[in-house]
Amino acid sequence: MSELRFDPVKQKWSVIATERSRRPHDFLVERHEHAHGEKAQINCPFCYGNEVHTPHEIYAMRSFGKKNDANWLTRVVPNKYPAFGIEGELKRSGSGIYDTVTGIGAHEVIIDTPVHSMRLKTYDRMTVYNLFYTFRERVRDLSNDTRFRYIMPFKNYGLGFGTNIIHPHSQVIALPVVPNILKTKLKSAKEHYRRKERCIFCDILEQEHKDNSRIVYENQDFIAFCPYASSFPFELSIYPKQHAHSFAVITESGLTSLADMITEIFHRLDRVLEDPPLNMVIHTSPPLNYRPGKPDFWHSIKFDYHWHIEIAPRLTGYAGFEWGTGFHINPVRPEEAAEYLRQAGGI
Amino acid sequence: MSELRFDPVKQKWSVIATERSRRPHDFLVERHEHAHGEKAQINCPFCYGNEVHTPHEIYAMRSFGKKNDANWLTRVVPNKYPAFGIEGELKRSGSGIYDTVTGIGAHEVIIDTPVHSMRLKTYDRMTVYNLFYTFRERVRDLSNDTRFRYIMPFKNYGLGFGTNIIHPHSQVIALPVVPNILKTKLKSAKEHYRRKERCIFCDILEQEHKDNSRIVYENQDFIAFCPYASSFPFELSIYPKQHAHSFAVITESGLTSLADMITEIFHRLDRVLEDPPLNMVIHTSPPLNYRPGKPDFWHSIKFDYHWHIEIAPRLTGYAGFEWGTGFHINPVRPEEAAEYLRQAGGI
Repeated sequence: MSELRFDPVKQKWSVIATERSRRPHDFLVERHEHAHGEKAQINCPFCYGNEVHTPHEIYAMRSFGKKNDANWLTRVVPNKYPAFGIEGELKRSGSGIYDTVTGIGAHEVIIDTPVHSMRLKTYDRMTVYNLFYTFRERVRDLSNDTRFRYIMPFKNYGLGFGTNIIHPHSQVIALPVVPNILKTKLKSAKEHYRRKERCIFCDILEQEHKDNSRIVYENQDFIAFCPYASSFPFELSIYPKQHAHSFAVITESGLTSLADMITEIFHRLDRVLEDPPLNMVIHTSPPLNYRPGKPDFWHSIKFDYHWHIEIAPRLTGYAGFEWGTGFHINPVRPEEAAEYLRQAGGI
Repeated sequence: MSELRFDPVKQKWSVIATERSRRPHDFLVERHEHAHGEKAQINCPFCYGNEVHTPHEIYAMRSFGKKNDANWLTRVVPNKYPAFGIEGELKRSGSGIYDTVTGIGAHEVIIDTPVHSMRLKTYDRMTVYNLFYTFRERVRDLSNDTRFRYIMPFKNYGLGFGTNIIHPHSQVIALPVVPNILKTKLKSAKEHYRRKERCIFCDILEQEHKDNSRIVYENQDFIAFCPYASSFPFELSIYPKQHAHSFAVITESGLTSLADMITEIFHRLDRVLEDPPLNMVIHTSPPLNYRPGKPDFWHSIKFDYHWHIEIAPRLTGYAGFEWGTGFHINPVRPEEAAEYLRQAGGI
């Protein structure tokens, strides 16, 4: 089973993923494959008719037929090499100065669409709707498991940027601990709310509206802008305009509006950057069923946290400077990035 | 001038580097170049005789001759596209919810050796000694500038992993703020010292010694091990065995011992992973001349902080999961990695 190990100096968890265990030679093979593009996929396991080549289906959007049939719109299966295992007991242990938690969690793959060669620039509103509908269903379902402290849907797009399979897919991960990045966000939000009785994210949206130089696109329910302190060139944040702590509570009408927003952003990114590799993450509140010992903390999240989506095209690297400082060097001013994306025009 | 911008939610600085300013098209060119290897270097600016093609020399190890002559052993020049500028006033300003600091700092390139095609696996002790001697001289010199809150020497190795130039080189960066990662480390160290009157790093070294499963190599003055919560496969930490807060205080005899250690590690990494791309960072204490308002904090660093070197081969990616959580997924147990590196044998 995988293990989460805590670094007492960096105050940071690492996942030692034994299911993915690899020997030195495996990395050489991967470097070679990476340099020579995608592995030949004769039978793509994510295409219609190859359902037997994935682990057993967890969820699917389909209007008829039974589990593991073809004719689905989206399909969710366990990751074949999961970083976290769904079975087993959550155990916390210590050894001297070090802490460990068993790698209990979920690691699921969402197949976005049956169309093998679809690129983000050809995603239509219905494809995006189906994907985010599926994200919502998985977050809702996984929230019922009280072992999980955080659930994160995300997408790695572009060969070599977190994926080696070309067939469009995303992921959902459920974790037994609250990750550092979320902890910091929750803490900032809580501190701001305590002092001002206002949501820090709502305050940011208001300032972005007034300033107007970083906004890329907005519709009735959502706003997209290049964040003031963007770590990456053409980085984007997307927020619901109405305060809401959790992505899980989004309605069908909200999903329709979100589908418009995301499709718009994918198309604009393609126009400006020609089908760039990217990562997309949904930052939602931790499931509220987790409340041991800290009832106030979890109760107040509804007021002080505001869910959002972050998208980062992968144009710059992650090397010694970023690793050593935690900073990123971004060679494009967010105001300029926003201007390019505004002028790129709609779908 | 570049700007540091602070994200009030993530509590994290980003560097908006205008000297490196790029337009969307530039990224396409880079993606193309990345896919097709190194740019043709007819006149490598880092080779003997091409000294005029770099900005004016800051420092060099040479036994005779004058500035910008050839016949150097190592040579330090300003980065041609610096993320930080040495000239100008350090200004802190705010705009609503956002904070900004002018991008004052230093961004230097160290040419490790005159030998254009030297790889880490062919670094001998003298080459490593010269490099670290140069690191020390630059840290000492930059520490005199009271505008700088942190100085970090580091190395990106491998085309596409933070560098596009094959001629062996490293970097030193001086920052006007203390980076998040160091802040967390300082805080953990201080908290541990306050409770136990012991250095947390010395405690870790003691536990690693007792456990013995993650130690790779040690000599009289240094110890190298794969850290318990390694974020990356075959990650290594190197510590001086005697407590010392700052790399700047290392003696010539210490440098000789360090050169043995680093050469040993480079060779073993090559034996196990065949010349892997890697990042190396020296984590030293902030310069102690900075003490405004917090005399105790800066005074106690001598006792609670312990300088060290981190090396991470770049075998796994940085994608949505890492970006969204701050965790890394490491598919190799540090105990196994240490075993491979131990068995790889010495130089």
